[in-house]
Amino acid sequence: MYKLVLLRHGESTWNLENRFTGWTDVDLTPTGVEQAKEAGRLLKAEGFEFDVCYTSVLKRAIWTLWHCLDQMDRTWLPVVHSWRLNERHYGALQGLNKADMARQYGDEQVLIWRRSYDVPPPALDPDDPRGQRNDVRYAKLAPEQIPLTECLKDTVARVLPFWNESMAPAIKAGKRILVSAHGNSIRALVKYLDDISDSDIVGLNIPNGIPLVYELDENLKPIRHYYLGDEEAAKKAAAAVASQGKA
Amino acid sequence: MYKLVLLRHGESTWNLENRFTGWTDVDLTPTGVEQAKEAGRLLKAEGFEFDVCYTSVLKRAIWTLWHCLDQMDRTWLPVVHSWRLNERHYGALQGLNKADMARQYGDEQVLIWRRSYDVPPPALDPDDPRGQRNDVRYAKLAPEQIPLTECLKDTVARVLPFWNESMAPAIKAGKRILVSAHGNSIRALVKYLDDISDSDIVGLNIPNGIPLVYELDENLKPIRHYYLGDEEAAKKAAAAVASQGKA
Repeated sequence: MYKLVLLRHGESTWNLENRFTGWTDVDLTPTGVEQAKEAGRLLKAEGFEFDVCYTSVLKRAIWTLWHCLDQMDRTWLPVVHSWRLNERHYGALQGLNKADMARQYGDEQVLIWRRSYDVPPPALDPDDPRGQRNDVRYAKLAPEQIPLTECLKDTVARVLPFWNESMAPAIKAGKRILVSAHGNSIRALVKYLDDISDSDIVGLNIPNGIPLVYELDENLKPIRHYYLGDEEAAKKAAAAVASQGKA
Repeated sequence: MYKLVLLRHGESTWNLENRFTGWTDVDLTPTGVEQAKEAGRLLKAEGFEFDVCYTSVLKRAIWTLWHCLDQMDRTWLPVVHSWRLNERHYGALQGLNKADMARQYGDEQVLIWRRSYDVPPPALDPDDPRGQRNDVRYAKLAPEQIPLTECLKDTVARVLPFWNESMAPAIKAGKRILVSAHGNSIRALVKYLDDISDSDIVGLNIPNGIPLVYELDENLKPIRHYYLGDEEAAKKAAAAVASQGKA
């Protein structure tokens, strides 16, 4: 049996400001730093050990990993970065306030943008300075690999190759892995692992900074999953995520 | 022409307490964090770009790298960790105060322990809890690879294989590399690069947190080297390092 730990980054400045973030590279808040450290303390207290860590190329996930590893005395573990673990690209909504958008377009429209499986938000203009086409960290990608918007289906489509080619083989080779990523890149993984339907995934929310442990069989099929620490706190935090897009 | 940047970690808690640190894994002080950030701001202001970073498995060097990269907006760069970039192992002196030792054994003896090329400090007992033989980060090493003490000659001997097998080929392949390491692992590299004699290396001190830039020719022979930022401040900081072992 294998174990896989998924960790959504701690609270970011734009989580706090209730803004659509996507690929915008924002910092953790002091609360987010504390959540990351607490995740590390929990993992250490529960005796978790890792051989390799995976994260995105966005600093809220990277710093979450760093603070977590520091609490575990494991700052020296190898870390693999991939843009494929980035948050879902929020297109032209990036930077805008979720509640403002709900007042302007209605709760329902915002819920569609936030959670519908296959309806992407309006796309960024390719020349929009909020885009990533001139960002050096994506310099090796073809322009068409750098999204201008994404629905979750798009995110699943670019997360899964990384799962199949890098993470899953590592797990099968006996590596114990920790993934520090984002609400929607983790939802993409969870949807795949638990074979959640396109309609049911709409209701699934991942709380910030709480380790989500998957126990997997030899074919990497989930046996069970659970949040580490206070299960009730995790539920409340997930419910808070769900309510962010309301006016 | 290639560029290589060497960065000694910022001030650590045991630098501040003037204790022999070696392979003991101590944190940065708030001053050390600030030095690391300033190094990052300098590198960014001077337009330095890197493709891959190298560091030790000790958190004062790792955190220095992390803070430096954050200031450069480069938290996503790949990082290679190697125990071969660790500080010189200080043997049975680890944890002891440098000035206390100077009062007890004399300035000259402490200078020999600190700076002689081939006289190691007294060895740790293999069962001493200050040793690293049960530390999981060294689990893949043979016991005899985990030092009980080292002189600089020993440090050179374990740093150079990593230079030759990993760093030098990366540089020749066009990778721009940043090395966040320690006073003596950097002295080992500098001794080799500049072909400094066993006697002259005694007088060479590396200040904390100031990027040391080497420009190298196609055979990786140094053309010149310089500290980034205020050259006078770098000299003063190096002189302060030199005087740490006095009563």
